[in-house]
Amino acid sequence: MISDTAMYDHDLPSICYGLRGLTYMQIDVTGPNKDLHSGSFGGGVNNPINALALIISKLKDEKDNILIDGFYDDVKPLSQKEKDEFKRLPYDEEKFKAELGVDELFGEEGYTTIERTSARPTLDCNGIWGGFAGEGAKTVLPSTAGAKVSMRLVPDQDPAKIEKLFTDYVNKITPKSVKVRITSLHGGKPSVTPIDTPAIKAAMRALKMGFGVEPVFMKEGGSIPIVNSFKEILGADAILLGFGLPDENAHSPDEHLDLNNFHNGILSVTYFYNELSKLNK
Amino acid sequence: MISDTAMYDHDLPSICYGLRGLTYMQIDVTGPNKDLHSGSFGGGVNNPINALALIISKLKDEKDNILIDGFYDDVKPLSQKEKDEFKRLPYDEEKFKAELGVDELFGEEGYTTIERTSARPTLDCNGIWGGFAGEGAKTVLPSTAGAKVSMRLVPDQDPAKIEKLFTDYVNKITPKSVKVRITSLHGGKPSVTPIDTPAIKAAMRALKMGFGVEPVFMKEGGSIPIVNSFKEILGADAILLGFGLPDENAHSPDEHLDLNNFHNGILSVTYFYNELSKLNK
Repeated sequence: MISDTAMYDHDLPSICYGLRGLTYMQIDVTGPNKDLHSGSFGGGVNNPINALALIISKLKDEKDNILIDGFYDDVKPLSQKEKDEFKRLPYDEEKFKAELGVDELFGEEGYTTIERTSARPTLDCNGIWGGFAGEGAKTVLPSTAGAKVSMRLVPDQDPAKIEKLFTDYVNKITPKSVKVRITSLHGGKPSVTPIDTPAIKAAMRALKMGFGVEPVFMKEGGSIPIVNSFKEILGADAILLGFGLPDENAHSPDEHLDLNNFHNGILSVTYFYNELSKLNK
Repeated sequence: MISDTAMYDHDLPSICYGLRGLTYMQIDVTGPNKDLHSGSFGGGVNNPINALALIISKLKDEKDNILIDGFYDDVKPLSQKEKDEFKRLPYDEEKFKAELGVDELFGEEGYTTIERTSARPTLDCNGIWGGFAGEGAKTVLPSTAGAKVSMRLVPDQDPAKIEKLFTDYVNKITPKSVKVRITSLHGGKPSVTPIDTPAIKAAMRALKMGFGVEPVFMKEGGSIPIVNSFKEILGADAILLGFGLPDENAHSPDEHLDLNNFHNGILSVTYFYNELSKLNK
């Protein structure tokens, strides 16, 4: 049992049965061998920040489709059953937009937001740097610039294969007037666990006892690489019981945990071990 | 007299008669109102780093042509006389590439490197930032990202007009799924000074006495906004006598000054004031 997923919503205990995988890369671009004066050299040599922006702009099109050659080759289409299950989850788009402070959502056409954030692969820049980032103006044409780019993967994408496709593609689109170094920082396989096992049924009973509400099944957009390792090495399906909420600022300042869920979570886990012990007798 | 330009080459005393102008802008992009977990939210909302990279990639095409609507409208074409003068300056492309450590130069087609770095307008990113830039991997979908972008201007471009064109264009190309704030940080008009005045002739005599070599005329890609203010407000043409060399790492670590030029520069300036005092008698 792992508690590293989230409840779908307030008062809605949730069992997560699918996780996205991850390929996390770093791109380092070098232009001239030292920082230059942009007045004296601008127009003579390529600028690594401009070149990096160009590379990043070619990773996805403006409708969020990933352009890396072969990226979607192993992606399983969503089944109708799965689409129907997603539709049963409560979701209010206006509320979602208001909570995040955005005027417009963004993602692949033909998929709902829930599908896009949990069951479709995605690509995000997680960081970028280069040149002068302080207050005011400095007219530098920098020597280097870099970015971190991660991709969330779904069955049956393989992180090692995606790493190679990413590397080949970035090498292909990098202008010859700069040099690029591509490094892999992290990877994890996607995973889906069966939802009809005795252990999952024990978890359902435990959550109902802990929260007084029937639990739902959901997929999570994040990645927990060890879930796949447990399956491959130990043959064990992980049970993903999480008690955080989506608006509790995970990985962000002011991360917090609802005390009611903390207490009901403790009860649920206790019930779960008790239910599990009955199965093993 | 201002000593803020460079000598064209070693042992080649130089009088600068043209400077590029400058418009220096900052772009701040905001996506969601807080940093998010890229697994849980990736695919749902636009990522400000990806959006910023897209914006930057649309400022220039892949041949270094600036795409801002109206940007080239007021640019005077290079005269044949000017092109001929540039051709007389010593320039070794292989040496230039080797000094900067690049395999390929980059700039507008149809212009030489000297023309592109001194007499054509250019656009460079001077800095970029956003998200996680430390060692290793953090799966954040950041709330904000920003960049500094400057443009070198030539006669008769006006920095205030270019600032407006830049702002309108960036607003036009920014995706609706993010917000953008555009700020002007600095601006200066380009300038060209006449080269047949008594004061310029005095400077030519002074440089010849100081260095023992006939000086050359050159344009400089950098910007010294006060040169234009001296002309507009005082009616005075500035004499630009600089004694730094292009490979002395201006605006970069290990900036330095050749001692021989330092001493000959002192002599030249002394001779210059002496020659100038004769004119005023």
